[in-house]
Amino acid sequence: MDRRGFVTTGMAAGIAGLGGAGGAVGSLLDNSPLWATGKTLPDGTVKLSSNENPLGLSPAARQAVIDAIPGANRYPRDVRTQLMAALSNFIGKPEDYLVLGAGSTEILQMAIQAYQGPNVPLVIAEPTFEDVPRYQTPFPYNLVRIPLTPTYEHDIGRMREAAEAHRRPSIVYFCNPNNPTATITPSREIDAWIADAPESTMFLMDEAYFEYADSPDYGSALRWVDSKPNVIVVRTFSKIFGMAGMRLGYGIAHPDTTARLREFVMQNNPNVLAAAAGMASLADEGLMARSVDVNRQAKEIVHVTCNELDLEVLPSQTNFLMHEINGDLGTYISRMADAGILVGRQFPPMLGYNRLSFGLPDEQDRWAATLKDFRRKGWV
Amino acid sequence: MDRRGFVTTGMAAGIAGLGGAGGAVGSLLDNSPLWATGKTLPDGTVKLSSNENPLGLSPAARQAVIDAIPGANRYPRDVRTQLMAALSNFIGKPEDYLVLGAGSTEILQMAIQAYQGPNVPLVIAEPTFEDVPRYQTPFPYNLVRIPLTPTYEHDIGRMREAAEAHRRPSIVYFCNPNNPTATITPSREIDAWIADAPESTMFLMDEAYFEYADSPDYGSALRWVDSKPNVIVVRTFSKIFGMAGMRLGYGIAHPDTTARLREFVMQNNPNVLAAAAGMASLADEGLMARSVDVNRQAKEIVHVTCNELDLEVLPSQTNFLMHEINGDLGTYISRMADAGILVGRQFPPMLGYNRLSFGLPDEQDRWAATLKDFRRKGWV
Repeated sequence: MDRRGFVTTGMAAGIAGLGGAGGAVGSLLDNSPLWATGKTLPDGTVKLSSNENPLGLSPAARQAVIDAIPGANRYPRDVRTQLMAALSNFIGKPEDYLVLGAGSTEILQMAIQAYQGPNVPLVIAEPTFEDVPRYQTPFPYNLVRIPLTPTYEHDIGRMREAAEAHRRPSIVYFCNPNNPTATITPSREIDAWIADAPESTMFLMDEAYFEYADSPDYGSALRWVDSKPNVIVVRTFSKIFGMAGMRLGYGIAHPDTTARLREFVMQNNPNVLAAAAGMASLADEGLMARSVDVNRQAKEIVHVTCNELDLEVLPSQTNFLMHEINGDLGTYISRMADAGILVGRQFPPMLGYNRLSFGLPDEQDRWAATLKDFRRKGWV
Repeated sequence: MDRRGFVTTGMAAGIAGLGGAGGAVGSLLDNSPLWATGKTLPDGTVKLSSNENPLGLSPAARQAVIDAIPGANRYPRDVRTQLMAALSNFIGKPEDYLVLGAGSTEILQMAIQAYQGPNVPLVIAEPTFEDVPRYQTPFPYNLVRIPLTPTYEHDIGRMREAAEAHRRPSIVYFCNPNNPTATITPSREIDAWIADAPESTMFLMDEAYFEYADSPDYGSALRWVDSKPNVIVVRTFSKIFGMAGMRLGYGIAHPDTTARLREFVMQNNPNVLAAAAGMASLADEGLMARSVDVNRQAKEIVHVTCNELDLEVLPSQTNFLMHEINGDLGTYISRMADAGILVGRQFPPMLGYNRLSFGLPDEQDRWAATLKDFRRKGWV
């Protein structure tokens, strides 16, 4: 939908400030739509520190939210039923394979709660997404952090050894593609383990960035959920659908496993406006392609810039990447903030790299100009 | 805000169907605003089966949601900070006394998870709100249900005996006013127990309907949170603020206790549109009075009707009530549904009563006319 189409829906009068931040087209590459929210805050700061979709909610999702407001006083039972049906159709699995969450993080939390127990190994990569280690803190897990390989893949050999050494039930967390490295672990290696593993090894497969990954080595773990009750696939509306603030995610697993997870689900979810936006997003056929396209443009700018400055870039299969910064990471983050650009936080032990989330092309250009200025100052 | 004020905000063009269901003014008593959502579904069914506020979101909250849509792609960190500050000001307690949840039900879930343990007595009334017994199912609680007294109060003597008989840590759930009976337990009786109880007796005080209660015998447990770390007060935006579909609630407790609860909180809450609506609702000074007023009108209709038909009515301190139905409850519920009115579900053991949620006065009139018709048919 172009700007004209958007205005003619009659929404513009009701949506204050829409398209304001993303309105400027700073890059020759930029063909992002004028309704894009962008990642520029009201004070002019460009926020490239969170893996948020710079397009914002799709126009269809925005309209769906507005249409749903008069029903926002009602509990979500009916809209949950509709959303489950739409999601089942979208994923191609029956509804009893699905569990909804307030973001994919609720699915991670349910899994961590459901399978905890004394000395149960919880095996995760280092670095990886922090919510899983956070959720396990009140439980008696044996948390084992296994460093990524030199090529930033999950070290399957060592993870497997940690998970299965003692014949205890265990839980293994794969964030694939991995946050914060944006790298993938080849699915054939994971598949070989899943095929062989005892059913007491639970595979928690976080695929938050699934829709961005296009490597031939990458595949979803969804193929396993029919035959393996010990595989939980976790997906989200936060990334490709631009709904991070709406808190909507889901898990896909064997019905025996979703039944166990549901013992830990919050009642009365989801938010009815999130459900409305989610259904509109699933039905918006151009949405994923637009998100992938604007992401590709920003990634290209970062690649060209880092290549010019001879800074290493990790191969990205997501809506962010990690690049070398030649110096102290804390200093780099703070200098970028002084220049009006928020970049990613520290992910030990990778303190020679910064995680950078992708914005609209003109926002990414601003980052590129700032980085080049840092080089002139001898800072990177 | 009257209809004119609402239209001049320019929102009307953007909100499809707003005020449609509640537009009819069927009762002489009815002075509910024309923007009210009402409880009539698109197919004409009047839904008096959930304790939802018939006014819907306040106009200020609806506008706040629309204004927040362009930022709905962003994680909620900044809006959470703003909401916490607003809530702290509203409640009159420092922010470290507060914990946010996706509805008050998440606070209940956190408490049940945080204080569970082998053979820990979880003492609840019968009947009472079902989420607490639901959340405890995967944990090794000793669930004890204590029937309400003949005057529908919590039986404090028996609850206390069940909680403290074995010198175990315990958790006691008070829904006050109680769902589904709408009755209160006098706070002086609860206070006497709290003042005396060991710190290992955790009081989970669900005050979802607090703002509707006006009995001189009723008081909040909020008075205890400074001195008693074993008191958790639970409140919600679902009822008085009409935000049931938005999933926003909060707990208030001593900072030592909120810190414990936060070990079980979901990451990245709340939904940014819920936060926007919540802040607008807190700032809308007329909102609570409007909600109380429309509720009073519906309650009056139910009282007059049941009095005329000589059906007992339990005294209501909430936005619903329980009344006698003279016959089989399942049959009554199903006959009401056939007449286009959804009434409350069954709450064993009170199978001679129906829980009825309050709608707009004209909707309540429709229920009243139907009940009188049932009487003519000899059904009630």
